[in-house]
This record gives sequence, C-alpha cells and structure tokens, in this order.
Amino acid sequence: MALEETIKEKAAAIDEIVAAYTPEVTGFQKTLFEAMDYSLQAGGKRLRPMLMQESFAMFGGNGDSLQAFMAAQEMIHTYSLIHDDLPAMDNDDYRRGRKTNHVVFGEAMAILAGDGLLNYAYEVAAKCFETSKYPERIGKAMMILTKKAGVYGMVGGQAVDVEAEKKDLALTEDTLLFIHENKTAALIQSSLMIGAVLAGATDEEVSQLEKAGYDIGIAFQIQDDILDVIGDEAKLGKPLHSDEKNGKLTYVSAHGLEESKKQVEAYSEEAIRILQGFGHRNLFLEELVKSLISREK
Amino acid sequence: MALEETIKEKAAAIDEIVAAYTPEVTGFQKTLFEAMDYSLQAGGKRLRPMLMQESFAMFGGNGDSLQAFMAAQEMIHTYSLIHDDLPAMDNDDYRRGRKTNHVVFGEAMAILAGDGLLNYAYEVAAKCFETSKYPERIGKAMMILTKKAGVYGMVGGQAVDVEAEKKDLALTEDTLLFIHENKTAALIQSSLMIGAVLAGATDEEVSQLEKAGYDIGIAFQIQDDILDVIGDEAKLGKPLHSDEKNGKLTYVSAHGLEESKKQVEAYSEEAIRILQGFGHRNLFLEELVKSLISREK
Repeated sequence: MALEETIKEKAAAIDEIVAAYTPEVTGFQKTLFEAMDYSLQAGGKRLRPMLMQESFAMFGGNGDSLQAFMAAQEMIHTYSLIHDDLPAMDNDDYRRGRKTNHVVFGEAMAILAGDGLLNYAYEVAAKCFETSKYPERIGKAMMILTKKAGVYGMVGGQAVDVEAEKKDLALTEDTLLFIHENKTAALIQSSLMIGAVLAGATDEEVSQLEKAGYDIGIAFQIQDDILDVIGDEAKLGKPLHSDEKNGKLTYVSAHGLEESKKQVEAYSEEAIRILQGFGHRNLFLEELVKSLISREK
Repeated sequence: MALEETIKEKAAAIDEIVAAYTPEVTGFQKTLFEAMDYSLQAGGKRLRPMLMQESFAMFGGNGDSLQAFMAAQEMIHTYSLIHDDLPAMDNDDYRRGRKTNHVVFGEAMAILAGDGLLNYAYEVAAKCFETSKYPERIGKAMMILTKKAGVYGMVGGQAVDVEAEKKDLALTEDTLLFIHENKTAALIQSSLMIGAVLAGATDEEVSQLEKAGYDIGIAFQIQDDILDVIGDEAKLGKPLHSDEKNGKLTYVSAHGLEESKKQVEAYSEEAIRILQGFGHRNLFLEELVKSLISREK
C-alpha cells in the first residue's frame, strides 16, 4: 500500500514534467496541439519515465536533461498508442475508459498528432545539446532513444505483430519473442539505459541495464498473458480470454499456466539480481519492478 | 539542358547515398523494410538532400556526417508523403505513376513504414555523434532537423492544411502563408541550414539561409499555384485547375496571375541575392534554385 502511494505521487510529479515540455496550445496549429495534449494527459502510469528517473537516481545523476528525456520517452509511448488505436490498426474506440484520439479529433488529425509527438520527442531531446554540460551523454542517450523506438525496436515489433495478425499466421515462438522484445521490452530497456547514461554510468553498466530491461519486459508480457487467463475482470477493466478467442499464441498457450508463472519468476529474479549488482542500490526501483511483474491489473 | 543533366547526375548519386543508409531488407520485420524501401526508392527529385549538399559545399564543408543528414532528410520527406497519401488524408492511390504505399502494403503497414522512416531518420542522424569530429555541429543540426520537420514546421503546416480542408474553411491569407511556410518551405530551410551548420558556417550565415529557404519555398509554392492554371498537363502529369475545382484559396486566386508571377520573381530574386552575398558563391546552387522557381513541371 505504501508502495502504491509512492508510485502514485511519483506519477503525479511526472505528469507535471510532461506538461511542462508539451507545446503550448495556441497558434494556427492549435487543434494539433489539443490532439497531442489529449492523449499525453490521458493519465497513463508514466512507467517508462519513472524507470528512467529511478535509474538516473541509482547512478547518482543530477541536472535537468533527465526531465527532457523523460518527457520525450512518454511522448514516444503516447504516439505509439495513438497510432495503434487507429481504425487501420487495432481500431479501438476507447482506451482507459476515454475515447481514443481519432474518435475525438478524426483520423487525419490523429495520424498527425502521433507524427507530431514522435517528432517533438526528438526535438525536446535535441534541445538538451544547448544546455547540457555533458553533450556526449546527450549524444549517447539520443542514439539509444531513437534505436529502441524504431525499426530495430518498437516499430519493428509492431510491424511484425500487425503482419502476423493480418495474415493470420501461425506464430512461431521465435517470432513471438521478437514481438515482445521489441514491442514491449524495447522502451523499458531504453528508459533504464538512458537514465544511467545521463547520470554518467559506464558502457558496461548500461549494457547490464539493457539485459535487465529485456527481462522485465518479457516478464511483464508473460504476466499480461497470464492475467488474460486467470485475472480479475473488474481489476483489469477488460474481459478475460481475449487471447484464446483470437487464437493467439501466447506463453500460456505454448507452455501452460504453471510453466509460465515459473518463467515470470525466473525473468523477474534475473532482473532484480542485475539491479542489485551495481553496488549502489535503488530499493524503490527494485520494488517497482517487482510490483510490475506480480501485478493484478 | 546542361543544368538538367547535372541535376540528374547529382540525383542519381543521392539515390545511392539514400540506399546506403536504408536498413537492409531482412529479418522478422522484412515487410516493414520493404515498405520503407518502396517509397524511398520511388524516384523523387532528391531536391532537399541536393540543397543540403550544395549548401555544405558552398561553405567548404568536408567529412561524411553530411551524407547521413542528407539521407535522414529524404527519409523525413518520404514519410510525410506516405502519411499524406493515406485514405484518411489525401486518399491518393498513385504518386508519380506508381501505386502509393498503402495500396501496395496495406494501410497499417503504410502507417508503420512512415513512422519507421521518421524514426530512422533521427536514428541515422544521431549515429553521427559516434563518428563526427564536431559533435556540437551534430547537435545544432539535430535541433534544426527536428524543429523544421515537426509541429513548428512541416507537421504543423500539414495539420492546419488538413483542418482547413476538412472544415471547408475560408482560408485567410495569413493561414495560407502559414501552411506554405511550414508545409513547403520548412524542409527547404532546414536543408540549406543543416548543410551550412555541418560545414561550420556562423549562426548569422545559417540565419540568412533560413530566410533564403523561406523565399525559395514560398516562390516554389506560388509557381505551383500558377502551373495549376497555365501549366502544360502533359508536362505536369496531372490535370490543371484542381485548385479552382476544389475552391482553394491560392496566391493566384487572391492576387491574379500577373501579380503572382511578380511575386515569384520577387521572392526568387531575394533568395538569389542572399545566396550571392556569402562571399563564396555556389553557381550550381543558384542555377538549381532558379530552375525550381521557373520550372514548368
């Protein structure tokens, strides 16, 4: 309960950081800014910027480039949701109980709001070159941010997922792992990595965090699949058994419930082991990771 | 005629640069790479990277970050065409005589190909931090690249244009100028500016090029409006009078043909005057700009 409170407080503080980096809703392109704002302020968990912030803290970072990258990462996550929800993609009318972007602003504006957020994320990050005392860290952080969000990261995973669904392909386990690694784990990885890079961590430490982010992402996803089978519909806020109905290959359908639970444990333990290995621990980060993986919603 | 040949040769060389920076078409996300490639290799004029290259040359630049930024700019231009052509936007089935991306790969994959190209543009540009001897130039170039492509640049102009069309608003001249400045001129500006920044030009010189890029972009757009009235359908490869049929406010409808021609001249002369004012002239760049503005197609 105390943990849940702390997470809520931190998320509220991140809401303000994101708002501070959002374009002012004014000018000829006011509607575009409204559309971007609508989805940015939709009350997400702010998980990715929170992981970035905690990783930064773990390595003793200070300074304010962190906030720009936190906001940028949340913009990237948000754009991906707007485009995912489009009629040509998942065709979802609601997300977290609110109408999706294209339902409110129309499909054309939703496409542009997504494009605008993706682009603005990099604009916000690039501005750090003007102010940072460590331009080489900004350069490294930009490389990680762009790569993990892109065709060798999130967009790549999304494309393979879309193709598998449209063609109704029988997914191999390799393909499934590729999708989860890229669609789910990539932004978790970059969040942890960028926090560390901005705080001045070594390449070896950043590489360890890439591994931890992978473990967390995969565990998170398997837990998602498990909840789809044995979760509480009221807590989840969505009906169970959607994977089964859609004939989706999941960890659970491939390995059964018990083995899947064991895998969540194993990935989770490995991630925590890495986080505990840095000499300077961040207990909140460890608790946050555990709560993600054992979550009920 | 000699000019046209030179332009063709330079465009062919740029084709190879773009190809060299394009992801290899392989791996789980092969279809995504095919979709990106399809539009990147659609035989555009490569105008923006060409302007960047010539601006770089004018300021005596050397080194290879230029090529990465040229490819990045062409990726940004290409993503904008893919998203513009989507059913929810202009709903075009053909572009330059070839089927548009979504007609070939489906709407979902076309959205992702656009997202992928936009993101990869910044990935390619960010990689220059690892190799460049002038990281502060890369930082400046990234700031210009992101800003002019984004919500205060191309995406912003596009959003206002979309909104004006959907709502069938009577455009004011201010709004029209905003759209052209951002939708058309912004990437011309950033091309000229980035070439100069990478070559080590001063802030004052870069600011002069921003002005020249504005003049070129606006002249280019007025010429477009003029050709829609008095062009040669065969050369243009599209029917005339589309603006009139769509009831669009254009320079020509607002000011008449003669005044519009004078404006093209005036903007064009101002741009050339700026380009000639740097002490180190690039005659090809001057000819290229003149040919753009007096073009018949």
